[in-house]
Amino acid sequence: MAYLTEKTLSEVRRDLHAHPETGWKEFRTTALVAEELEERGYDVSLGANAVNVDGRLGVPEDEELAAAVERARREGAPEAYLERQQKVTGLVAEQTFGDGSGPVVGVRVDMDALERAEAMDDEHRPAREGFASTHMGEMHACGHDAHTAIGLGLAREFAGEVDFDGTLRLFFQPAEEGGRGGKPMSETDHITDVDFLLAVHVGLDMETGTVDAARERPLPNAKVDVTFRGEPAHAGQNPQAGRNALLTATTAINNLYAIPRHSDGKTRINVGHVHSPNPQNIIPEEVEMRIEVRGGTTELSDYMQGYAEQIVQAAADMHNVDIETELYGKTTTFEADEYVADVVATQAATVAGVEEVFDRGAFSGSEDASYLIRKVQQHGGEGTYVGIGASNTFGHHHQRFDIDEDAIEIGVDVLARSVRSV
Amino acid sequence: MAYLTEKTLSEVRRDLHAHPETGWKEFRTTALVAEELEERGYDVSLGANAVNVDGRLGVPEDEELAAAVERARREGAPEAYLERQQKVTGLVAEQTFGDGSGPVVGVRVDMDALERAEAMDDEHRPAREGFASTHMGEMHACGHDAHTAIGLGLAREFAGEVDFDGTLRLFFQPAEEGGRGGKPMSETDHITDVDFLLAVHVGLDMETGTVDAARERPLPNAKVDVTFRGEPAHAGQNPQAGRNALLTATTAINNLYAIPRHSDGKTRINVGHVHSPNPQNIIPEEVEMRIEVRGGTTELSDYMQGYAEQIVQAAADMHNVDIETELYGKTTTFEADEYVADVVATQAATVAGVEEVFDRGAFSGSEDASYLIRKVQQHGGEGTYVGIGASNTFGHHHQRFDIDEDAIEIGVDVLARSVRSV
Amino acid sequence: MAYLTEKTLSEVRRDLHAHPETGWKEFRTTALVAEELEERGYDVSLGANAVNVDGRLGVPEDEELAAAVERARREGAPEAYLERQQKVTGLVAEQTFGDGSGPVVGVRVDMDALERAEAMDDEHRPAREGFASTHMGEMHACGHDAHTAIGLGLAREFAGEVDFDGTLRLFFQPAEEGGRGGKPMSETDHITDVDFLLAVHVGLDMETGTVDAARERPLPNAKVDVTFRGEPAHAGQNPQAGRNALLTATTAINNLYAIPRHSDGKTRINVGHVHSPNPQNIIPEEVEMRIEVRGGTTELSDYMQGYAEQIVQAAADMHNVDIETELYGKTTTFEADEYVADVVATQAATVAGVEEVFDRGAFSGSEDASYLIRKVQQHGGEGTYVGIGASNTFGHHHQRFDIDEDAIEIGVDVLARSVRSV
Amino acid sequence: MAYLTEKTLSEVRRDLHAHPETGWKEFRTTALVAEELEERGYDVSLGANAVNVDGRLGVPEDEELAAAVERARREGAPEAYLERQQKVTGLVAEQTFGDGSGPVVGVRVDMDALERAEAMDDEHRPAREGFASTHMGEMHACGHDAHTAIGLGLAREFAGEVDFDGTLRLFFQPAEEGGRGGKPMSETDHITDVDFLLAVHVGLDMETGTVDAARERPLPNAKVDVTFRGEPAHAGQNPQAGRNALLTATTAINNLYAIPRHSDGKTRINVGHVHSPNPQNIIPEEVEMRIEVRGGTTELSDYMQGYAEQIVQAAADMHNVDIETELYGKTTTFEADEYVADVVATQAATVAGVEEVFDRGAFSGSEDASYLIRKVQQHGGEGTYVGIGASNTFGHHHQRFDIDEDAIEIGVDVLARSVRSV
Repeated sequence: MAYLTEKTLSEVRRDLHAHPETGWKEFRTTALVAEELEERGYDVSLGANAVNVDGRLGVPEDEELAAAVERARREGAPEAYLERQQKVTGLVAEQTFGDGSGPVVGVRVDMDALERAEAMDDEHRPAREGFASTHMGEMHACGHDAHTAIGLGLAREFAGEVDFDGTLRLFFQPAEEGGRGGKPMSETDHITDVDFLLAVHVGLDMETGTVDAARERPLPNAKVDVTFRGEPAHAGQNPQAGRNALLTATTAINNLYAIPRHSDGKTRINVGHVHSPNPQNIIPEEVEMRIEVRGGTTELSDYMQGYAEQIVQAAADMHNVDIETELYGKTTTFEADEYVADVVATQAATVAGVEEVFDRGAFSGSEDASYLIRKVQQHGGEGTYVGIGASNTFGHHHQRFDIDEDAIEIGVDVLARSVRSV
Repeated sequence: MAYLTEKTLSEVRRDLHAHPETGWKEFRTTALVAEELEERGYDVSLGANAVNVDGRLGVPEDEELAAAVERARREGAPEAYLERQQKVTGLVAEQTFGDGSGPVVGVRVDMDALERAEAMDDEHRPAREGFASTHMGEMHACGHDAHTAIGLGLAREFAGEVDFDGTLRLFFQPAEEGGRGGKPMSETDHITDVDFLLAVHVGLDMETGTVDAARERPLPNAKVDVTFRGEPAHAGQNPQAGRNALLTATTAINNLYAIPRHSDGKTRINVGHVHSPNPQNIIPEEVEMRIEVRGGTTELSDYMQGYAEQIVQAAADMHNVDIETELYGKTTTFEADEYVADVVATQAATVAGVEEVFDRGAFSGSEDASYLIRKVQQHGGEGTYVGIGASNTFGHHHQRFDIDEDAIEIGVDVLARSVRSV
Repeated sequence: MAYLTEKTLSEVRRDLHAHPETGWKEFRTTALVAEELEERGYDVSLGANAVNVDGRLGVPEDEELAAAVERARREGAPEAYLERQQKVTGLVAEQTFGDGSGPVVGVRVDMDALERAEAMDDEHRPAREGFASTHMGEMHACGHDAHTAIGLGLAREFAGEVDFDGTLRLFFQPAEEGGRGGKPMSETDHITDVDFLLAVHVGLDMETGTVDAARERPLPNAKVDVTFRGEPAHAGQNPQAGRNALLTATTAINNLYAIPRHSDGKTRINVGHVHSPNPQNIIPEEVEMRIEVRGGTTELSDYMQGYAEQIVQAAADMHNVDIETELYGKTTTFEADEYVADVVATQAATVAGVEEVFDRGAFSGSEDASYLIRKVQQHGGEGTYVGIGASNTFGHHHQRFDIDEDAIEIGVDVLARSVRSV
Repeated sequence: MAYLTEKTLSEVRRDLHAHPETGWKEFRTTALVAEELEERGYDVSLGANAVNVDGRLGVPEDEELAAAVERARREGAPEAYLERQQKVTGLVAEQTFGDGSGPVVGVRVDMDALERAEAMDDEHRPAREGFASTHMGEMHACGHDAHTAIGLGLAREFAGEVDFDGTLRLFFQPAEEGGRGGKPMSETDHITDVDFLLAVHVGLDMETGTVDAARERPLPNAKVDVTFRGEPAHAGQNPQAGRNALLTATTAINNLYAIPRHSDGKTRINVGHVHSPNPQNIIPEEVEMRIEVRGGTTELSDYMQGYAEQIVQAAADMHNVDIETELYGKTTTFEADEYVADVVATQAATVAGVEEVFDRGAFSGSEDASYLIRKVQQHGGEGTYVGIGASNTFGHHHQRFDIDEDAIEIGVDVLARSVRSV
């Protein structure tokens, strides 16, 4: 029997919480989920068959991936499923029920953790109850452990199902943090024939019992990593012999923040992870930095990204420095569709424990499920993004973030009823 | 008889002082000098025959030149000589004496005034004695009026000469200020067969009676004018629709001053004449600026110029702005040759009024006679630059700059003896 | 009889168009309007009695004002009125009608021209018909000539009035361009007891026959002039002896454009009029520049202004340079009041030639009538800003801007009916 | 018997090479040297008694020092000497010989290693012969292991000495790298009565057998560490709520490189170790950076340091960011004294293996023995800095730097003869 099969959803969530895996390294999570789903009769596409491998964004170095596979192996990921992943995480699982005459309904959950340390004192329940992260500096601080559990719960609900004559297709997306996995997952055939797509997120500053049937309009963004490579030289003896990567970067940064505001709406720019490791007596030969741009619309985000890349290139030319730029992550935006949002709203209201249902809340941040929803819409389908309230004292990404686990069952129930009703 | 012929050298200098003409606009000066020299039997090459027309640097706009010609006409420049100049100033005059078996000896003087206002009160002798500039904002504040007089005096000395069997060739150079006329004058055939070249300058912070037989090693420099052309837009309504020429220029300027120091020696950079005329509610569409670089050697000056041009181009690319760059002026450096410097030193010591002779003083600034001297040296000739002390209370370029006119006769005498003795 | 009295409003407008006076120099305009209004029985407060003299923004130098007075004198401004202005422009005129029991109704018009050249060819009606600007570089390109005529027309309408039992108070504001005159005019007692204030503007991209009864929400802005004063030095000989005002300014400018965007709404920043006149071989000792900030709210404009001033001061400290900053202009924002806007809308619909009436159009720019309207509102009164359509081929501030003069009579009529009806 | 006593100088050097200790962490080195010297009859002042504790520059954090003490203990440092150091490294040892009537002669050697990885392949002798660094990332790559051995060898030479009637005082200086230990060691009484001070360095790009009796004029420098502390904020949601430490640092850096060149001579500036760790979606709240300035004279270095500190402070004020600055290291300059340099030159020529002796070579870098030498000179003594050639294939600080160990005996001999002869 599969490792997760006999665990309750809460136990599943706690097991994942204790073994957080960050973007593109969700090897154990992928393997364990796949193991149970195949046992339950789902067709499972793993890793390289679940995402467009060449379209992945923000992928760690090969050695880092290899170490992550090794870690997953040590921590109980079944070998067969590790092999089938081919060093790529994520999975798509589907099963057709009844006569198969109904719609293809997709559900998207994400699985990755964050690079941040978890609180380890007794005031933090995961620590107190023994399921805190066993990996220093990695933590499920956004609830994706619960999302994975919800996805699994939904699969369990439908296994052996007779009330549903359609196809349920579950997207367990990797690397949502940074907006890295949604885009390559949207570039597969799995998405093109989906009639209705439901994405789900717990928390979102809503109390348990509240449901937003159509969270929408996330801020499109793009993350670009830049490495400037110049030439070192002794700053006292031959300053002119260097090619100064730091002066290049500082010129770029000053101009990035000065990209003109735009009359069409909101724009944002920021820079982080700046590292110029040279000692102070050597002309700086290498600087790394990470840019993030956002815009109120895709066009505005693209305007910022395009201008930013132009600035970086020109700064490099100014000081004869080489650059490497890499798109680390990217999201787009969407509006929820009316029919499917209505179905979710109607069904949510019938779920035990749900006290308030609304729709059309606006995201304050970014979300790469946007790529999947837009792709469904482009092919004539409908999509929505469902928020499941989960009372928490601390916000998303906080070292004390935790979820009210009641939200897991509510989430499964809201989604199951919606799948059957669209 | 020519207009200048019966004037003393002091009267000539005062006439020129009252009618200052700035670089490439010395039409009256050129014409009057040419008129007397032809009368005295010299072969005169004027304007377009005296400099490489296409190699001229920092030339004013056509309308400005036309107005200068018109002004020269109004102020007595003989028409025939204006016509022969073809809108280009400067002249080379030569005469071969005796059996012509001796060397070709060149003497270079410069003729242009500065763009600066002259003091007009009674403490300033030109004002007190009625020969101050009659043109607001233009002034002979560097002694080139005296240089022209010295050149003319030398021509008078040799007219009808019997003690000299060589060729005297006089270079009356335009546009020394800014380093604009020396280079194109060095690009003619007049210079290639010169055996000895003597350039001359009065003042140089030396008292009357002091002579430096070999001032040398001026700082090579380059002046580059830049115009940034962007696109205007209303700063409140469509800031993104502009292409900001000012942000481009400020980015360039900050980086220009940050060009790395060089281990091979002295480097300098500065920017001036920055003008961005847009009202504050319009994204700036045009900025003008002027760069000057210097270096302890030609290589260092070229290093600074090359880096500066690269910065300007990259800044323009950064903000999608167009640029025009123009080399406004350029000088090089030289070392005086031993034989000719010794001859000058020896002869200078025999001149009445000369009390101290030394050589090998170093320039603190730049000088474009450097191009003429180097060209002579490249063709196997020798050159030196002769400083003639002239006690002055105020330094060169000051609004109260004036010269002790005794220096004119001393200058003529030092040069005449040197020409005969090389 | 007063100079303007027998002229039609169109003739008045054309006379003013031919004699444009820019901000704080409207001496002739003020004098001629005052002359007719006193003749018609109005109490007139002139210049220093019409605005808070010490609160004036962006006032030209004394010599410039003196020259403007002299020009006004030459061009027919009656001496008595010039004297009463005490070198300050603007006027407030009032008359109480009937039993005086009704409200105090204020009407605000502005009088100043722009610093820009007017088109002088036959395609431009003012040139073709002989009333183009007689002063190179100054032009009524925003319609304030028509506004002044409308104010005068309204005064004529009410002279000898019997249908109105209240007080009409006319504000002829100086220096609207740049936002310089509204604030000091709002700081007088003339405004505090106004019950209803109507401001008026022609054009605003509306065709003749259209009226906006309540143009509102102009963008608050501030204009700050900065002079950086450093120390000159020879850039080749003693670069360290200078205090570089240009490097200071460029550092400030780069950071000004980089002031963080704000989550509360729109922000804007721009810089213009940058002048660093030093020659390129002298370390720049003085730079002038003009900043404009805007915000979607007064708070946002203040945020930008405060941050901008902090940047400028710090840049000066960075390079040991002195600064002078002066608030050149400032506007705020307002929302029109419902009752008075409704009255205007209702009355406008009854005016001959008016085909379409709407309200609540949003300004795309800034407007300093905002200070007057807010002051009235703070004292319990109501205000609105009335747009009177005037078909024009070219937009405001264009060298070919002209107005359809039918708008003048429409404007007078709309305002007169509104004054009587509030 | 002391641990080092029976080792040859080459063995001592290799033992130290295998156990490199970086600046202010030379606990084992100090203890082992002190142990042998006391055994040999020297009076030894340790740590807090050898340097001005409060004047130390660039001291690591307390925990780092504690860990270094612990490491020294594990690697055999005698406990008694660790205790006597009181967590401060360095030692001064002295012994008076004969009748004590002669001069006090000081010899200064330095003991610290560099933070850099050592080559570990067989082409590098320390690796091949088994004495390479046992600590990853730390290496004696500048020859200070040999300097310590030379100091010890000199002490051995004089122990039981009869030919010398003066006092030998040995300064084993900590933390020369970065210029951190020389200044505080010069601020003790040990230096004030020194009549002659000899500092020593092997290598300096000279072959074995060459001696420079008076290396002099090192470039004064200063190293300043800066931490900018702002305020984080979500870059998408509240960009204005942050105080951007990165924009502050980039503005500072751009201006640091733009500090004006100086007419009095060479100046240098560079920045390194720049770290801004924030993720790209958070306004950067902290940046660390390290500045190094140099000048051809102490005044020029001070000019650069003062201007740099002013820039950093103003940049912080510009964006309302806090700063901490700390002087990390500082050196000055000196000229060697004639008498003592002559003695060294004369004696060096008599040493076996010495083939060429010269003096007055100029440093290309910086050296904090300068503080000790200047202090001696200020008190009327004389000083010089002796270079002992040591043929090496790779330069100082290279991962393959090694020394020809013959230089150790030569160094001891040159110094011993010089001590006896001054």
